[in-house]
Amino acid sequence: MALRGAVTRLLNNSQICAAFTASRAQGTAATAIKGTFQSKVLFNWRDALNLEGQLTEEEIMIRDSFRNYCQEKLMPRVLMANRHEHFHREIVSEMGELGVLGPTIKGYGCAGTSYVAYGLIAREVERVDSGYRSVMSVQSSLVMHPINAYGTEAQKDKYLPRLARGEILGCFGLTEPNHGSDPSSMETKAKYNPSSGTFSISGSKTWITNSPVADIAVVWAKCEDGKVRGFILERGMKGFATPKIEGKFSLRASATGMILMDEVEVPQENLLPNVSGLAGPFGCLNNARYGIAWGALGAAEFCFHAARQYTLDRIQFGVPLARNQLMQKKMADMLTEITLGLQSCLVLGRLIDEKKAAPDMISMLKRNSCGKALDVARQARDMLGGNGISDEYHIIRHVMNLEAVNTYEGTHDIHALILGRAITGLQSFTVEK
Amino acid sequence: MALRGAVTRLLNNSQICAAFTASRAQGTAATAIKGTFQSKVLFNWRDALNLEGQLTEEEIMIRDSFRNYCQEKLMPRVLMANRHEHFHREIVSEMGELGVLGPTIKGYGCAGTSYVAYGLIAREVERVDSGYRSVMSVQSSLVMHPINAYGTEAQKDKYLPRLARGEILGCFGLTEPNHGSDPSSMETKAKYNPSSGTFSISGSKTWITNSPVADIAVVWAKCEDGKVRGFILERGMKGFATPKIEGKFSLRASATGMILMDEVEVPQENLLPNVSGLAGPFGCLNNARYGIAWGALGAAEFCFHAARQYTLDRIQFGVPLARNQLMQKKMADMLTEITLGLQSCLVLGRLIDEKKAAPDMISMLKRNSCGKALDVARQARDMLGGNGISDEYHIIRHVMNLEAVNTYEGTHDIHALILGRAITGLQSFTVEK
Amino acid sequence: MALRGAVTRLLNNSQICAAFTASRAQGTAATAIKGTFQSKVLFNWRDALNLEGQLTEEEIMIRDSFRNYCQEKLMPRVLMANRHEHFHREIVSEMGELGVLGPTIKGYGCAGTSYVAYGLIAREVERVDSGYRSVMSVQSSLVMHPINAYGTEAQKDKYLPRLARGEILGCFGLTEPNHGSDPSSMETKAKYNPSSGTFSISGSKTWITNSPVADIAVVWAKCEDGKVRGFILERGMKGFATPKIEGKFSLRASATGMILMDEVEVPQENLLPNVSGLAGPFGCLNNARYGIAWGALGAAEFCFHAARQYTLDRIQFGVPLARNQLMQKKMADMLTEITLGLQSCLVLGRLIDEKKAAPDMISMLKRNSCGKALDVARQARDMLGGNGISDEYHIIRHVMNLEAVNTYEGTHDIHALILGRAITGLQSFTVEK
Amino acid sequence: MALRGAVTRLLNNSQICAAFTASRAQGTAATAIKGTFQSKVLFNWRDALNLEGQLTEEEIMIRDSFRNYCQEKLMPRVLMANRHEHFHREIVSEMGELGVLGPTIKGYGCAGTSYVAYGLIAREVERVDSGYRSVMSVQSSLVMHPINAYGTEAQKDKYLPRLARGEILGCFGLTEPNHGSDPSSMETKAKYNPSSGTFSISGSKTWITNSPVADIAVVWAKCEDGKVRGFILERGMKGFATPKIEGKFSLRASATGMILMDEVEVPQENLLPNVSGLAGPFGCLNNARYGIAWGALGAAEFCFHAARQYTLDRIQFGVPLARNQLMQKKMADMLTEITLGLQSCLVLGRLIDEKKAAPDMISMLKRNSCGKALDVARQARDMLGGNGISDEYHIIRHVMNLEAVNTYEGTHDIHALILGRAITGLQSFTVEK
Repeated sequence: MALRGAVTRLLNNSQICAAFTASRAQGTAATAIKGTFQSKVLFNWRDALNLEGQLTEEEIMIRDSFRNYCQEKLMPRVLMANRHEHFHREIVSEMGELGVLGPTIKGYGCAGTSYVAYGLIAREVERVDSGYRSVMSVQSSLVMHPINAYGTEAQKDKYLPRLARGEILGCFGLTEPNHGSDPSSMETKAKYNPSSGTFSISGSKTWITNSPVADIAVVWAKCEDGKVRGFILERGMKGFATPKIEGKFSLRASATGMILMDEVEVPQENLLPNVSGLAGPFGCLNNARYGIAWGALGAAEFCFHAARQYTLDRIQFGVPLARNQLMQKKMADMLTEITLGLQSCLVLGRLIDEKKAAPDMISMLKRNSCGKALDVARQARDMLGGNGISDEYHIIRHVMNLEAVNTYEGTHDIHALILGRAITGLQSFTVEK
Repeated sequence: MALRGAVTRLLNNSQICAAFTASRAQGTAATAIKGTFQSKVLFNWRDALNLEGQLTEEEIMIRDSFRNYCQEKLMPRVLMANRHEHFHREIVSEMGELGVLGPTIKGYGCAGTSYVAYGLIAREVERVDSGYRSVMSVQSSLVMHPINAYGTEAQKDKYLPRLARGEILGCFGLTEPNHGSDPSSMETKAKYNPSSGTFSISGSKTWITNSPVADIAVVWAKCEDGKVRGFILERGMKGFATPKIEGKFSLRASATGMILMDEVEVPQENLLPNVSGLAGPFGCLNNARYGIAWGALGAAEFCFHAARQYTLDRIQFGVPLARNQLMQKKMADMLTEITLGLQSCLVLGRLIDEKKAAPDMISMLKRNSCGKALDVARQARDMLGGNGISDEYHIIRHVMNLEAVNTYEGTHDIHALILGRAITGLQSFTVEK
Repeated sequence: MALRGAVTRLLNNSQICAAFTASRAQGTAATAIKGTFQSKVLFNWRDALNLEGQLTEEEIMIRDSFRNYCQEKLMPRVLMANRHEHFHREIVSEMGELGVLGPTIKGYGCAGTSYVAYGLIAREVERVDSGYRSVMSVQSSLVMHPINAYGTEAQKDKYLPRLARGEILGCFGLTEPNHGSDPSSMETKAKYNPSSGTFSISGSKTWITNSPVADIAVVWAKCEDGKVRGFILERGMKGFATPKIEGKFSLRASATGMILMDEVEVPQENLLPNVSGLAGPFGCLNNARYGIAWGALGAAEFCFHAARQYTLDRIQFGVPLARNQLMQKKMADMLTEITLGLQSCLVLGRLIDEKKAAPDMISMLKRNSCGKALDVARQARDMLGGNGISDEYHIIRHVMNLEAVNTYEGTHDIHALILGRAITGLQSFTVEK
Repeated sequence: MALRGAVTRLLNNSQICAAFTASRAQGTAATAIKGTFQSKVLFNWRDALNLEGQLTEEEIMIRDSFRNYCQEKLMPRVLMANRHEHFHREIVSEMGELGVLGPTIKGYGCAGTSYVAYGLIAREVERVDSGYRSVMSVQSSLVMHPINAYGTEAQKDKYLPRLARGEILGCFGLTEPNHGSDPSSMETKAKYNPSSGTFSISGSKTWITNSPVADIAVVWAKCEDGKVRGFILERGMKGFATPKIEGKFSLRASATGMILMDEVEVPQENLLPNVSGLAGPFGCLNNARYGIAWGALGAAEFCFHAARQYTLDRIQFGVPLARNQLMQKKMADMLTEITLGLQSCLVLGRLIDEKKAAPDMISMLKRNSCGKALDVARQARDMLGGNGISDEYHIIRHVMNLEAVNTYEGTHDIHALILGRAITGLQSFTVEK
């Protein structure tokens, strides 16, 4: 065969397409691939690269059912919840009944879904509100996950089923008032008291989602050996207070507060024994960040779809606003970023399910999704003109929410430096060489 | 089971994760998923989302072999080729021997690879130079593809094997001097002469890759019935001239020219009979754009990798440039965009292979890849400081090349409007409602 | 002289610097300009191009006095006003007493300042809150200005002094629910009733700053001859209602509402007689936009200064946040845009004072200031990390405010098209050629 | 008077506008300012904020005459000069005859113009080509300026008149191969030899504009006391070589090379005695950067004007390209940035003339002008579509040139950090605290 001959002549590595050719070319010569691209495949602007075709039936079923709940039960509540900074605690119970809390955990009353399904859930709930997704992320990734991953069997039995049902709500105490991006400087201390078999914990945590209404808190503290460890604190313990933060203009449909601990006595059996050092909280954060990466794009999708519909409905200068080039360009950008972002989240989810994911991958997509979602939301708000500042159109709420989402669990810049270090091998966080 | 009971109570759609749970939860409760994200998976900054793992062995083999050729045989030639605006014609023959011309075509001496493999080939060659990829795209997508898709069996037999071997080189005549983005205003005319059984073609085309050195040209002309049809012209036909365009500061390693046709007599059997209207050239362009979407990111990857290495090697103020936050942020952005872009190209390739791709998908990724690649190249050039303007570091060449790549086969803005129309159902190209 | 000789030899126009040389060069040769740039001039990051040196003493005095008022009297009120969507009506009276309402108007109890002074006032008040500036802009530019420019002497005598004192508050009714950017499609009608000597006005206006608490409204309506004219409506007229718009997440410290007019009988003497057509409201809008151009940059300055101080005070990884390159780059961009923007506003103010300003100049700077201020505010919010979503740091309030400011009185995109028309002579607002 | 009374009542600082009012309000009440903004002032898109009105007659005359020269004498040469990397040495002589070399220097055959005039000259020449402006900047700011500012009377008498006439051409040797942004690490050494009264200088400099054709070089070297000092080297000195750098894709119409010094013996009288340390070269660079700030915007203006005309002339889809919203938005952005940038350069020029300029001001405007000019040029190139890569439309040349201009004499990022330090008081160049 001419091609094979040529290949042999040229280079040792010249098998290239040739080997492939040899095995396939027989008998197919006559089948012209006419019109490869003129096929009548319809373009779906809601799913521009056919994400749907890459999901399992179960994932689609989980996603669709939860979407219904979100649209029918959450969407009607969120307007006033956000306007009046009111958190509807009963949502947690509803989610629990649906089985979406701690969904990837196997056993203990949890659903044991794939990580992709977890991502789809996060996307649906954040399509409504980032605050609601935050509540869910905290419960699933920052409370249930560490208990499951680092806790004793007794701890799991005691807490996980109730958390999964939404009977109790948890929060996660890592960030301190003076150390937002630098948890290694933690000031909260845990001191072991051998006589009572308890740890005495003192310190304060801030910007803690759920804290004002949480029943338990997974709190990270520095022990006497200098190592950070996790503890399960319960509401009602003496010296434990969770004042609400007022005047928040982001995530107003969820509750945020501090955790103040003044020599809280925590029984030894509330220590999470199977991890020490920052690997513990970082593992939780990575888990949560993965959900955020999906969720933020759900918020972006809402904004894109809403702005699209608004500009189609609103006539200016005799044509729909959507007929304007400046509007169409914004929508083309939105579509592209949402599509690429979701596709990559899907791939990451599969990698996690296969235990092939590295934390830096999560940093990359948390950062990308949040930054792009914020851009999309801002553009969408702009497309609504004056109406865009009214909460009845919902987009301004997403704009405000995404400011927090782009910041928490690693700011856009911090994740840039995490990636920079992964790329170069050099850290540039600190002034140390 | 508690969860199942809860599900039944709440909502009809509440199966959600629950059904999934029921089928999986048995027996797995004890298997804690410890350390889901702290696993020792290494992050690979050259392949941040494990694209490699999504390729077939054959695709990897084709890619690796062709990469070797590109790095060993093309890279050493490109510097002077670009500096002196010189096109090495023999490259086409070498590619032919490697089997990478018209690689997706089945039969006629072509390799019959997947579209993903075609994309990987485009990426490797454009990692060296967009001009070389242009030469290959034209041959494969704009000359071989239309002959294969719209031609007679005789035409295929006559031209495809020689084109596949690189024995002859083709070009594609669509764009006219006055109608860059609007081919429907085509001025080139084809008039049938029944007595001689020939078409007389007159008109001019410009910015035609390969034209000065091409042996044949697939030229699109408006026939007397007002419909656009394709013709195969051959060098040597009377009235057919292909002057070179001088003073190009982009794609200098490839030849670009015009096609001037002054009553060229083209035999009837050189008409491509199986298509009429703009669907013909548009089908070709979509084919080519798909390759560009991959290729442009190959150029971006080169720039990213080169800038990374440069900043690691260059010491300023006592540390490598790569130690600076401003540098790391640029690299984090580059990595992200390249990774997301490539991942989406892969998915698109699979969809094409499955005949599930819509042309608007290709518009989206052609636009995204080119725009992002241009950004990456500009940032990379900036990272090289003064050295970045020297062709010996290659990046400035990519910057110049990508200006053309971002423009041809549909500018960034035109594809935005194509997408805008796909999203809204409203066209905003023209002033017509 | 050699130089002069050379000049004569070369070209007729070659006097160039030479003539200048001849008149200056004598005697100065020995005075070396040593260290032109190493002079010990201190760089002032609060005023990077010495705007101060370009102001008159009176302008500085006005600015400083009003700044004191704003910082001492407005700043303490704005936090709760914004948090609870409460407009402090008494602020208007205070401003009236200070003489800053309708300040450029000469006579009628107005201050008769320069337009530059007006700009400085707008900047100071918006440094506190865009809502407060909006209240002032409406009173000054959209109510007092049209009465002064288009009204009768009787109207001026009746309204201007009371408006100047803040005794009564006005609003401006142009925008309609269905025609945000296209006032020529106005639906509000004014029908003359010869028997009663009144106009009967029906229609609705929306997004009207001050309307819920305004005593009078300058309303624009289409008369039976198809021309738009202005009318002064007073609260208490039958059929006149001003419902408040709830759920606004921008400009919450000011009141916004609708104006609903159901056959409101307006006496003939309330017609503004000296203008007809859209030139009337457009003249007002240009006046207001000029103030916005200054004001928005005042908000940007606040955000820049606050973010700078925050990052200086907050220690992360052992150094102030402000020590990070990523932070410094953001601040360098902020400083640059604020400085350039303010400088251009100053030049524009001088041109207005000299009657040399064209409306397109105002479009340019309204657009630039608002777009850049929004960018600055967003970057500043980002620099504050999690704290940036708390209203106690004020920046999130400016972010939300500037969304409206960037939109109202001509969106960023609409002003782009206004400028585009000025540049090209071609309109691209509508689908008409 | 009511207003004054009110003022007294309210606050001590309440004079604000009131005092101003009192002095002006008398007698003017009747003069209504009708139609402040509807005036028939025409908007000039070539000068959107009336820069012209802020220039002196002399400055205008100098500018216009030099513009004629540039358009008539330089523009016809630049196309081929750039295409073939050819520097026309005679241009320097022509400029010398026009009196534009070292124009701000007083005496020694120099013109003694204002710094504003210097800026206008730089803008005109760079409107043609940044390479030509570079040649002029080096001669004026980097060779003549240091001789004038730091040299002896004998040095001035010997060199300045010949440099001013363009009879000899100079270059400036500061940057070294390994220390682009960090001149304090200079490796070039000067060793004094008491016996011969000469300095022996060894080292190498790179990216030196003019070096291959320069007659003299102002070279900075580290002396034995560790201090950097300047020396005037002359072509022909033994051990002094200036190889040309090939393969430059920026500033191709000017010559760039290295300076290699192998124990060059430099007479003591060629030392610049009146400065030591980096203040010397930095003073020169600031002088040059000021010219760049103006010049880069001249290049931007060319690109804006050319793209505007192109899109007006080119018909697509039945209307001029300029009729498209996407085009108009680009032009609106260009106009705005050019206008604001030029206005600020003017203010800076006046401050320099008044000895009120600080170096950080120059950093701000060098950075702003270059970054914005590069953006403008890229957008303009994009607007030309395929034609935009041809040098015959000139814009691609400016795009390539501005890459260097944005980089040299302090990159965009370095100036960000200079400004960051000026804003915060903290340096972030190095890893030192």
